[in-house]
Amino acid sequence: MFAIGIDFGTNSARAIVVSCADGTAIGTGISDYHSGDHGVLTHPSDPHLARQNPADYIGSLSHAVTAALSQAEKTPGFSRADVIGIGVDTTGSTPLPVDARARPLSIDPQWEGHLAAQAWLWKDHTAADEALAITEIAKQHAPHYLAPIGGTYSSEWWWSKIWKCLKVAPDVFDAAASWVELADFVPAVLAGVSDPKDIVRCVCAAGHKAMYSDEWGGLPSKEFLARLDPKLAELRDRLYDRAFAPGMPAGNLSVEWARALGLKPGIVIAMGGFDAHYGAVGSGIAEGTLVKIIGTSTCDCAIASTNVGNVPGICGVVKGSIMPGVYGIEAGQSAVGDILNWATELTRATESTESTEEMHRRLSGEAAKLRPGQSGLLGLDWHNGNRTVLVDPKLTGLLVGLTLHTTLGEIYRALIEATAFGARAIIDRLREYGVPIERVVCCGGIAEKNDLFMQIYADVIGQPMLIAGSPQAPALGAAISAAVTAGVFDSWAAAQQAMTSVKAKRFVPDPAAHAVYDRLYAIYKSLHDEFGNVANANLGSVMKELLKIAAEAIDAPRQTS
Amino acid sequence: MFAIGIDFGTNSARAIVVSCADGTAIGTGISDYHSGDHGVLTHPSDPHLARQNPADYIGSLSHAVTAALSQAEKTPGFSRADVIGIGVDTTGSTPLPVDARARPLSIDPQWEGHLAAQAWLWKDHTAADEALAITEIAKQHAPHYLAPIGGTYSSEWWWSKIWKCLKVAPDVFDAAASWVELADFVPAVLAGVSDPKDIVRCVCAAGHKAMYSDEWGGLPSKEFLARLDPKLAELRDRLYDRAFAPGMPAGNLSVEWARALGLKPGIVIAMGGFDAHYGAVGSGIAEGTLVKIIGTSTCDCAIASTNVGNVPGICGVVKGSIMPGVYGIEAGQSAVGDILNWATELTRATESTESTEEMHRRLSGEAAKLRPGQSGLLGLDWHNGNRTVLVDPKLTGLLVGLTLHTTLGEIYRALIEATAFGARAIIDRLREYGVPIERVVCCGGIAEKNDLFMQIYADVIGQPMLIAGSPQAPALGAAISAAVTAGVFDSWAAAQQAMTSVKAKRFVPDPAAHAVYDRLYAIYKSLHDEFGNVANANLGSVMKELLKIAAEAIDAPRQTS
Repeated sequence: MFAIGIDFGTNSARAIVVSCADGTAIGTGISDYHSGDHGVLTHPSDPHLARQNPADYIGSLSHAVTAALSQAEKTPGFSRADVIGIGVDTTGSTPLPVDARARPLSIDPQWEGHLAAQAWLWKDHTAADEALAITEIAKQHAPHYLAPIGGTYSSEWWWSKIWKCLKVAPDVFDAAASWVELADFVPAVLAGVSDPKDIVRCVCAAGHKAMYSDEWGGLPSKEFLARLDPKLAELRDRLYDRAFAPGMPAGNLSVEWARALGLKPGIVIAMGGFDAHYGAVGSGIAEGTLVKIIGTSTCDCAIASTNVGNVPGICGVVKGSIMPGVYGIEAGQSAVGDILNWATELTRATESTESTEEMHRRLSGEAAKLRPGQSGLLGLDWHNGNRTVLVDPKLTGLLVGLTLHTTLGEIYRALIEATAFGARAIIDRLREYGVPIERVVCCGGIAEKNDLFMQIYADVIGQPMLIAGSPQAPALGAAISAAVTAGVFDSWAAAQQAMTSVKAKRFVPDPAAHAVYDRLYAIYKSLHDEFGNVANANLGSVMKELLKIAAEAIDAPRQTS
Repeated sequence: MFAIGIDFGTNSARAIVVSCADGTAIGTGISDYHSGDHGVLTHPSDPHLARQNPADYIGSLSHAVTAALSQAEKTPGFSRADVIGIGVDTTGSTPLPVDARARPLSIDPQWEGHLAAQAWLWKDHTAADEALAITEIAKQHAPHYLAPIGGTYSSEWWWSKIWKCLKVAPDVFDAAASWVELADFVPAVLAGVSDPKDIVRCVCAAGHKAMYSDEWGGLPSKEFLARLDPKLAELRDRLYDRAFAPGMPAGNLSVEWARALGLKPGIVIAMGGFDAHYGAVGSGIAEGTLVKIIGTSTCDCAIASTNVGNVPGICGVVKGSIMPGVYGIEAGQSAVGDILNWATELTRATESTESTEEMHRRLSGEAAKLRPGQSGLLGLDWHNGNRTVLVDPKLTGLLVGLTLHTTLGEIYRALIEATAFGARAIIDRLREYGVPIERVVCCGGIAEKNDLFMQIYADVIGQPMLIAGSPQAPALGAAISAAVTAGVFDSWAAAQQAMTSVKAKRFVPDPAAHAVYDRLYAIYKSLHDEFGNVANANLGSVMKELLKIAAEAIDAPRQTS
């Protein structure tokens, strides 16, 4: 038996056909979005705007799955008739307005070119004022809405974006029969849903981004929404009453899509979910296992079988958001790979012919020659603000310990270390609130490609760093969801046991390096708390302590590893 | 009438022949030192070691003066017979051991190749342990010795170096009849002094570097020196009892040197002095005028007619060290141009063909397009420690406000600004202790070449920045000293009136920019005091405040200037 997983990323969709026996991908298809700049619609006068053309999703869905199936057919024993279900993961929060027949509003020629009628991509930041207002109003009138999402509502999320649309394009708002997250939209398309009321909504998007909770009867009350705008209160009736955990079907494959893809009509369409959450499933998440999806930014996922309550600075804790019956916990760092990319681009000479990849390789090579602490540098990894645990976008990066001898390789290493300290701060916070973390599995390009990065993380965190077996963990997780939903497995654990793996290569902490990083982390924490405005540390000895650690690092016997 | 000024720098000597009527240089000669790396003797296993071959001083003295005189002779009306005196300025503290005939010990074939027998260049840092011990012992037993020099004895200074020599090369120490500062050595050479007892010592080196003061009867007591090492106490008898301010002759030109240079024998040799101090004289220092000599590091000189007492963190306040009868005040920043050089070299790509000069021009150009505060960056300029006002070499550079959009041009500007804030902190401290500063005159290559740098300084400090008329201010100052000593002028002020000038081009503060910099300086001060361990500031709002200033800078109407 086989399942299909489809991952809708920021620039393209990727489909895989996987064996339910062992999770092997026997077919892969990738389809770039055609509109805008690599699939992103932008506006010259507003750098915060990032939209997508919903037609791209449907086009890429078809192309990617078709390509994956064609490749799968080269494997002996595979038949399209053996595909038992389809799972979908997407970016989010990426809401789009739909018409009365559950079609994207933008397919109507009237709205076709209107930016507000498109999908509002996760990284669209036009709704900053709305996010601030929602946070303020919730703090005053309904603080419980904010508790599971870390205390601060984001400009990237559902209500901020829809409210912004109402303000800047009331005609679009009025024309929308409903709004839907991309994660719920694609399954509804595959299932042939033709009424917004029939779209099955996942609690993953609802709980993390739309302030949904069964505890308070679903979405925020009409009374609360009316405080934002009466029209948002009216919209509530046209949205949904319940959202669901993965494991139940979002629908069954429509006759039209079955014909188009050459699959059996009626096979299960799994609940949609966010890429990070299904990536966690595909990386083997379990209680005690933290999955880190490391890319330009990082998303950290954990689960807990009992309610850990609200963990300050963690946005958020939502029952069923990753797997049914357990609390899904999501945290993250606003920039990780992006900080390293910034460091390379910052120093690119005009006439340089070196590729970004080559620069990363060269700087990693220089950085790898250094011992922990040797550079005397320490950084704060807040170049794009701090998501977890400070939940404050108005923070910036810092570097201390600079001398006239400081090299770029040293700075590059200090930046990796800074992100590793940020990662450790998240783990510390989770543990502090009773989330067990005994195992760390990483996925994403950096985890697979940058050994220095991974070793530093192991040494800083003091835990082995494992790498997910599949380089396509989100799509694999979506396929697992389809397999479970189709009844191929009795349990999620059984499905993960069969279909996920970790690579043999793992990064084990070096005790001597870990000891040095413990000292550096203590300094990082004092800077973190002082500049993050959560404590008044005394930083008068920071520079001397860093110089001392550096002097000791140079004198220390060279490690054998 | 004409005077000769000779400036002994780190890599070469420069002689000028100037008219006493208006200070015009009618002849210039430059002679590089031949030994070592651009005149500096180094040791592969010790990066702190920096020595010079005294033979280079004598060779360059002869070449540079000869070249300057040859050029002067092309000016109609000039005659070598009209040269009325010679003044000398040098780096320091640069002590060298001499034999019983006042010759450098290193001319003896026995010591020729011995590094300890050479001149110990100002930037030799091998005596760090000795400096620490001197500071500790003085704090315990003779704290008054430290008061005029800012409270901390430096590894760059006289006693640290001689003590180090005693430890590492006791044979050299034992062979030395005496030790002499380079600033006193060259005048003694020109005067044909053949007994170390006859070397006239300047209070400039003695008071700032050797803990000399008339208040306690000259050099530190034998009792104190014996606490360091009994042999240093013995050496005291072979050094000097009194040191003198400029204005009296260090000697008269010997027959041999007169013949060699084609000058009249017996003309006045002025008191030697440090380059910064004579540079201040040549830049027109007066009470109320601060002279900034801006190079790789910066030296700030002021004078006060009344004793301002000991100014914390200012090393130091010495009567007669710049001009007779007034208190010479010296402060400085450990790295200024060096920080900008570091920023360019840090980012130099392997294959780059851009010269350092071109990189500075390009980055200055990018930085000049920015408004004050626009980058959101703020730095601490401690890449080489902090000389004034924290007197702490164990401090390092810091940069805060980094984002994924931060450019190298922004960093370059922030580094200039950081050094300007450091400069303002010195001025604030001087004013706080009663040193009037109503006028700032700069000299050095950066002052002449980098308009952006100078404008930022004017805007940060809130005072017009003037530029010394002579690009060779130290040699001019030495020549002025010769003219005054020869009796050409009644007073130093009269000599400066006639022989110094400032350029017509000056940099006037822009009130709007100054207002922004006032806000940034307040943040700089909070970082300065916190990381400098002199106060416990609360830095929790620093990043937000910088972002706010940046947002306002972008919104502000463009300045017309």
